[in-house]
Amino acid sequence: MYKIGIVGGTGYTGAELLRLLANHPEVEVKAITSRSEEGKLVADIYPSLRGHYDLKFTTPSVDELAECDLVFFATPHGVAMDQVPALLEKGVKVVDLGADFRIKDTVEWSKWYGMEHRTPDYVAEAVYGLPEINREAIKGARLVANPGCYPTATQLGLIPLLEAGVIDPSDLIADAKSAVSGAGRGANVGTLLCEAGENFKAYGVAGHRHLPEIKQGLQAYTDKQVGLTFVPHLLPMIRGIHSTMYATLLDTDIDLQKLFEERYQDEFFVDVMPEGSLPETRSTKGANFCRIAVYRPQGGNKVVVLSVIDNLVKGASGQAIQNMNIMLDLDENAGLTALGMIP
Amino acid sequence: MYKIGIVGGTGYTGAELLRLLANHPEVEVKAITSRSEEGKLVADIYPSLRGHYDLKFTTPSVDELAECDLVFFATPHGVAMDQVPALLEKGVKVVDLGADFRIKDTVEWSKWYGMEHRTPDYVAEAVYGLPEINREAIKGARLVANPGCYPTATQLGLIPLLEAGVIDPSDLIADAKSAVSGAGRGANVGTLLCEAGENFKAYGVAGHRHLPEIKQGLQAYTDKQVGLTFVPHLLPMIRGIHSTMYATLLDTDIDLQKLFEERYQDEFFVDVMPEGSLPETRSTKGANFCRIAVYRPQGGNKVVVLSVIDNLVKGASGQAIQNMNIMLDLDENAGLTALGMIP
Amino acid sequence: MYKIGIVGGTGYTGAELLRLLANHPEVEVKAITSRSEEGKLVADIYPSLRGHYDLKFTTPSVDELAECDLVFFATPHGVAMDQVPALLEKGVKVVDLGADFRIKDTVEWSKWYGMEHRTPDYVAEAVYGLPEINREAIKGARLVANPGCYPTATQLGLIPLLEAGVIDPSDLIADAKSAVSGAGRGANVGTLLCEAGENFKAYGVAGHRHLPEIKQGLQAYTDKQVGLTFVPHLLPMIRGIHSTMYATLLDTDIDLQKLFEERYQDEFFVDVMPEGSLPETRSTKGANFCRIAVYRPQGGNKVVVLSVIDNLVKGASGQAIQNMNIMLDLDENAGLTALGMIP
Amino acid sequence: MYKIGIVGGTGYTGAELLRLLANHPEVEVKAITSRSEEGKLVADIYPSLRGHYDLKFTTPSVDELAECDLVFFATPHGVAMDQVPALLEKGVKVVDLGADFRIKDTVEWSKWYGMEHRTPDYVAEAVYGLPEINREAIKGARLVANPGCYPTATQLGLIPLLEAGVIDPSDLIADAKSAVSGAGRGANVGTLLCEAGENFKAYGVAGHRHLPEIKQGLQAYTDKQVGLTFVPHLLPMIRGIHSTMYATLLDTDIDLQKLFEERYQDEFFVDVMPEGSLPETRSTKGANFCRIAVYRPQGGNKVVVLSVIDNLVKGASGQAIQNMNIMLDLDENAGLTALGMIP
Repeated sequence: MYKIGIVGGTGYTGAELLRLLANHPEVEVKAITSRSEEGKLVADIYPSLRGHYDLKFTTPSVDELAECDLVFFATPHGVAMDQVPALLEKGVKVVDLGADFRIKDTVEWSKWYGMEHRTPDYVAEAVYGLPEINREAIKGARLVANPGCYPTATQLGLIPLLEAGVIDPSDLIADAKSAVSGAGRGANVGTLLCEAGENFKAYGVAGHRHLPEIKQGLQAYTDKQVGLTFVPHLLPMIRGIHSTMYATLLDTDIDLQKLFEERYQDEFFVDVMPEGSLPETRSTKGANFCRIAVYRPQGGNKVVVLSVIDNLVKGASGQAIQNMNIMLDLDENAGLTALGMIP
Repeated sequence: MYKIGIVGGTGYTGAELLRLLANHPEVEVKAITSRSEEGKLVADIYPSLRGHYDLKFTTPSVDELAECDLVFFATPHGVAMDQVPALLEKGVKVVDLGADFRIKDTVEWSKWYGMEHRTPDYVAEAVYGLPEINREAIKGARLVANPGCYPTATQLGLIPLLEAGVIDPSDLIADAKSAVSGAGRGANVGTLLCEAGENFKAYGVAGHRHLPEIKQGLQAYTDKQVGLTFVPHLLPMIRGIHSTMYATLLDTDIDLQKLFEERYQDEFFVDVMPEGSLPETRSTKGANFCRIAVYRPQGGNKVVVLSVIDNLVKGASGQAIQNMNIMLDLDENAGLTALGMIP
Repeated sequence: MYKIGIVGGTGYTGAELLRLLANHPEVEVKAITSRSEEGKLVADIYPSLRGHYDLKFTTPSVDELAECDLVFFATPHGVAMDQVPALLEKGVKVVDLGADFRIKDTVEWSKWYGMEHRTPDYVAEAVYGLPEINREAIKGARLVANPGCYPTATQLGLIPLLEAGVIDPSDLIADAKSAVSGAGRGANVGTLLCEAGENFKAYGVAGHRHLPEIKQGLQAYTDKQVGLTFVPHLLPMIRGIHSTMYATLLDTDIDLQKLFEERYQDEFFVDVMPEGSLPETRSTKGANFCRIAVYRPQGGNKVVVLSVIDNLVKGASGQAIQNMNIMLDLDENAGLTALGMIP
Repeated sequence: MYKIGIVGGTGYTGAELLRLLANHPEVEVKAITSRSEEGKLVADIYPSLRGHYDLKFTTPSVDELAECDLVFFATPHGVAMDQVPALLEKGVKVVDLGADFRIKDTVEWSKWYGMEHRTPDYVAEAVYGLPEINREAIKGARLVANPGCYPTATQLGLIPLLEAGVIDPSDLIADAKSAVSGAGRGANVGTLLCEAGENFKAYGVAGHRHLPEIKQGLQAYTDKQVGLTFVPHLLPMIRGIHSTMYATLLDTDIDLQKLFEERYQDEFFVDVMPEGSLPETRSTKGANFCRIAVYRPQGGNKVVVLSVIDNLVKGASGQAIQNMNIMLDLDENAGLTALGMIP
């Protein structure tokens, strides 16, 4: 059994790692840290874990974590950049679920995240952990930057079109909708049930941190400058992301359905649905799948791509485990075979 | 007191008419029809009406309805077209909340609604009841076609830009999200709490009945052919529509905020929010307001308009009463001053 | 127009007072205080109020408030007790929506609220503001203690039975369920959408602050010692309280339906539903009504009473306005005629 | 691999069997029947199953089902009673998730279910499938009647007290709350999101079909006549049952916490929480656990038991699989180790 550590275990992505890893056949969680809850049993914070974990939260220490084979960082940005290097030096592999190592241009990163980057060399080394795009690089990586939730759903939807060169990269729109758990477990008026329930609104219209991440990912597939309008919205529900993408077709003879099916035919976690399907977020609830459908409304020159994931699974902790499986040379699906929970 | 009739009173728009009219100072509901619930008290179907209405549902009859000054049709398409002419001939004014008289091109109408139109002359006569666009015509009308919910939110958001000639009409996108009450009160697996709750999906991507209605409304403001991609989605909540609109600016020097503020400065029911605002659907819950914000993300050539309404009020029954007030020469706001219910 | 002040206007009960008073025909809100939001427009905190209020939040000052005819305190316990006396001395009437003046036994009060009571004389003077029980006393009062939400729903359900002497007062059970808005607008992990949504649990089982308030209210109707087991639960929704009450009948010949109908026949805001009815919380959403049904399951010796209210209206701000109307000798229903919002 | 059949696979309990069995290590679903969806892929009805099941719905046939080792009936009452005998005769084991074999007194059964029982001999033979109470009998059974959802949560909460003889059996109250999925997937106005969402109400107060089932289960533990008042309520959420039970203690010296802990110390699926805990339904979402807490409010003579399950798992399909595991001599936990999904 590989030994696993989790830094920052009290948030939703930490809890989701624990939920998913409880039934993983090849790894065991040996350490979980939280400054605020030090000394408490994880099962006291998350009663759903009662009977499955005896672990207590500890204060993060390099020595304790260095006994692990791989450590997940489920921390706000700015934490992993300082703590990761020491672990890597001791031979521990790392998957960072935060934003510290996602954006290669650290000047751009600083602009969006409001702080200077203190370990830019590790940004250069880090591998962007979208396995369906980057599997080979992940295999050999010791540091993987786990993608954001919106970037996962959106890149999986647009990359096949850019790769094939059939859309105009300069005029892309991603109208994305996320459930509230994407905002984390912090006490916050805006995410109270009485504020976010029975309500819908856009946010971050003027600019959202996932915009540069998505653009960086898309830019790799075209020489033309990517132009992307990205508008996120908040859904009155707990889990799920739906990205609705619009692009202008350069080639209207292309068989879009076939393009997507072929691109993802060997991908266990990406399900290209039959023509005319309407992907539902709940079909991925609690599961590591992405479901995609593609449309050309009224046979015009616009392509519409619909892409859904569970933001906490394929959009965070599930994908992190998928990366871990690849890095540890395990079955990529290990521990990730649960189906979406309907209803 | 003016006498009011409601045909098809058991659905959500019928119930909402009753809720709103209960406190209207100048009108009284005298007749309400429903074949399926004939003889039952309206308060037995909607206990929230107990103590406020003694009315029973009756079977629709021209004679009974002809005693009214104005009749609302809250019926599925195909009903009003047959029953309205007789009422008009007897001097009764009509507001149709259904789709029968909205689209001037009856061939186009037939294509989307799957039946022939049996009274096209009345389509020609009907006035499209979006008061902020069409107030003068509504004043003199005896037959008003109340707009659909998506068309209301979307036209109020795009028309100022088209009127001013500052966007390219050939490449418009409306990514719209509606709460479930838009689907009505019919028993239907897809709108069960266990199917539509904690879930989000697009629908009608290949083509939705509100598409031709919106296009017709927009086309009036430009000589160029309107090109519109319209993708509706289903929100896991009861009331509210949010339309997110994208267009390409022809003129990037325009002061968009000022454009909208001036366009709607005399409109009580349209609230152009301050720059940087994020309209929430709940700010209109139960109320007849539309709230709008306008953005130019990253100062680029795309304009993003956010528009919210309560689909059952400004998107249906409230707007119908607004039309009634205009047609009967009452205060346009009468009975419609309730505020959005937060939380 | 009477002049009204609100102390503590940023919470949900403050916002609900503003929503309801916006259309009140006889009063006008002249002052609203909030230390945390001083200087901000109320419409910036609650966009649903845009266009209806130009008011800004101010820091509470006796002089400003003393110009009002009546002041509502929508503050946490411990605030009103210090500020109310000065206002009363200046001839201002007060309705306290908090808990400071509800419990006559200030020693008991201290036990549950964790602080000493600093103005016990005013507790003695205060009138408990449940109009259906206490209307005459409210008429002459200058200080009214507005009841808690659970106590309103529960007392209206049990008092007719105790008054009539038909149940055993020593063995009462109130299994009560409240929507989340009862917990207020404070940032709090427990009331996040992701914590309270799609979830249900009991709380305060060992003892809840509304227990002594309910017991005091019930004790007035019997010489025997009231024994009450009160278990509150948290519902995954925004508004509504449902109290399910169980008692043992001393007299099984009594016509329970008639007993309730006669008790409340003159009460506009209490609706005794027909036999076999199932009161729904939503039938009172946004409205000042209480709906009640009474059962004797399988004809046994247990009586079950079901009572529903909107916790923010009849359970807080609506009832406070009802009290205000009585104190100012206005129509008791003024500003409170809106119907429950279904759906 | 054991071969499994499912009769009536389109409802929620059928879908939940498929979801849970997809990862079961020792069994494989070989046949699934549905008259209404015959010929369709199960993955077309439930897209969350895409990639995991190639099965098509078939019309029920004894011959096809007879090739299975065990067949689940996920059918409305009245179906299994006719089809089960032929399967048993062919050596197939059966777990009936419906109500046909739960109540031993078939006259009583007929009263509540509105039809005559056509195979009373099999009622006599059937074993009531509550493993924590009845494990030994289930081991040898060929026909198991899977308990109802309310009866599971309620019996697990009350039986320890009755077994120990510490409460008065004649005056029991179960105030139970169920999520909407308990009502099934049928198209029904009452369970629409717009009717059941943001709403709470009691139902079946005059009498509910689970009442005789619970009473039968409790009666086995006392010679005194069981008196139970059972009031179910509908929660505005998808999954979860919370039963709040009240009883009068005969012995107030008893250590209630210890009583429950000892009773369930060897039960993997029943978690007696520490004193002062508040079980949340979501801690069991998607999982086969029951969580229980016990209270004696204010140290009085009332005991309050709180018991939560997922109505579709421990309250239906999960418990059915637990029974299957026992009947087939597999690990009782096989396929049932997933944790509750928080958030």
